[in-house]
Amino acid sequence: MSASAFDTETGVVARGDGRYDAHLSTAWDIGDNANGGYAMLPVLRALREESEHPDPLSITTNFLRPIPGGGDARIDTSVVRRGRSVSVLNGSLTLAETQRLTVNAVFGALDDDEPGPAIDLPAPPIPPPDDCVDRAELLQGVALPIASRVDVRVPTDSVVAGGSDRAITEGWVRLSDGTPPSVLSLPLFADAFPPSLFAKLGSVGWVPTIELTVHVRRRPADGWIQARFECDDLVGGRMIESGTLWDRTGRVVARSRQLGLLLRTG
Amino acid sequence: MSASAFDTETGVVARGDGRYDAHLSTAWDIGDNANGGYAMLPVLRALREESEHPDPLSITTNFLRPIPGGGDARIDTSVVRRGRSVSVLNGSLTLAETQRLTVNAVFGALDDDEPGPAIDLPAPPIPPPDDCVDRAELLQGVALPIASRVDVRVPTDSVVAGGSDRAITEGWVRLSDGTPPSVLSLPLFADAFPPSLFAKLGSVGWVPTIELTVHVRRRPADGWIQARFECDDLVGGRMIESGTLWDRTGRVVARSRQLGLLLRTG
Repeated sequence: MSASAFDTETGVVARGDGRYDAHLSTAWDIGDNANGGYAMLPVLRALREESEHPDPLSITTNFLRPIPGGGDARIDTSVVRRGRSVSVLNGSLTLAETQRLTVNAVFGALDDDEPGPAIDLPAPPIPPPDDCVDRAELLQGVALPIASRVDVRVPTDSVVAGGSDRAITEGWVRLSDGTPPSVLSLPLFADAFPPSLFAKLGSVGWVPTIELTVHVRRRPADGWIQARFECDDLVGGRMIESGTLWDRTGRVVARSRQLGLLLRTG
Repeated sequence: MSASAFDTETGVVARGDGRYDAHLSTAWDIGDNANGGYAMLPVLRALREESEHPDPLSITTNFLRPIPGGGDARIDTSVVRRGRSVSVLNGSLTLAETQRLTVNAVFGALDDDEPGPAIDLPAPPIPPPDDCVDRAELLQGVALPIASRVDVRVPTDSVVAGGSDRAITEGWVRLSDGTPPSVLSLPLFADAFPPSLFAKLGSVGWVPTIELTVHVRRRPADGWIQARFECDDLVGGRMIESGTLWDRTGRVVARSRQLGLLLRTG
């Protein structure tokens, strides 16, 4: 595995007029489909190319259809507004002549030195990464090629068999190739953990994401990213899961919220 | 005031090919600008006309520029995907030849009788509406024409002068004209309360919304809607505020999250 798998396997080639080409790797699959957080990355890179601002501040992704693992993809982008402090852009990912996802993003600049008042959400205490286990040990029976690319560790007492009082999943995440975390990998990390619903209900089925919004809050420091996700709202098979990511200095670096479907297989 | 101010003042007229006309009323202004939650409603109505599904499940709005109060508006819509269970559509609102906001929405059907497991977020106990005060009594000095259209009540001990430990705003909301709450008015209600930041920092300035996502969870029962918003994350003048709305039966009917800017005037 190359030292820059993250960069090369999410890279894009500009074709002009806001169009880009990409090639999805099967190395980021979950089962037979590409991980959604991975598939949105080439679009995010293309949007950043088109933007005059370096950092995605808000990223809303609509997952329209399953994304088959691997294959050539086309990315289309359009600029909604170029502003002085922020820009708004739209993009889409097309595979096999079919649009798979759309991204609506606000770009701006995250300053390292932040003036003014601050409100901080503290990271909950959990065992350090070395005392945690790979999530693949919990998710028996699901093929996880993405485990070769994204290193997800969860506490040894993590529950995916149901019975927990609250639907929470938490742990640590980093890129397996040693690439430091960045404003681009945070959206990926926000979609990399086992569904929090499993803690309360068990591995009841497939939980596809309909809409995911990630807010990037700071440029992350190098090292593991701590993450916590909770579903506190489930009705009619539609769930809301909210998440927070912290860097190794304990600062919030991203927030996430998604609308997901619970498709029960049991 | 007509009994259907909500319907007539947020109504749209189809012009074909996904285009609609609307007229914004100044009755929903805050200061000299239209309330953002109000200005998105004609777009949401147009998108619902174009969708084959009745209920907005997820609504992401990007506020691009200030929206002057009153005036003729053009709405453009496009269908991203028509699916069996959900549809995805985009829309925009243009006033005076300038795009003011864009909406990206997922539509589906909220069933009244919901099968399967549920997770419910309980409504926090607060004084009933009759024991609360109009928010205009707290926000002295801000012209609130919208107070004639949206009735917002907050507990008498609500703080907008700063000093609270947490940045929370909560209370009750309904349409002043007696129109029952609906899946269309919930997004409006999610943007109708004083900024939660004021409780902790005081009325430090203007807090424009950059991006707002509302998830509609249920069709609301008739009566007051209870609401609670908290900013738990502020850095570099960018804040995340999350909210929940409950109907009079105590069921969650909507969730919200927004990225806002703190523009300090003090």
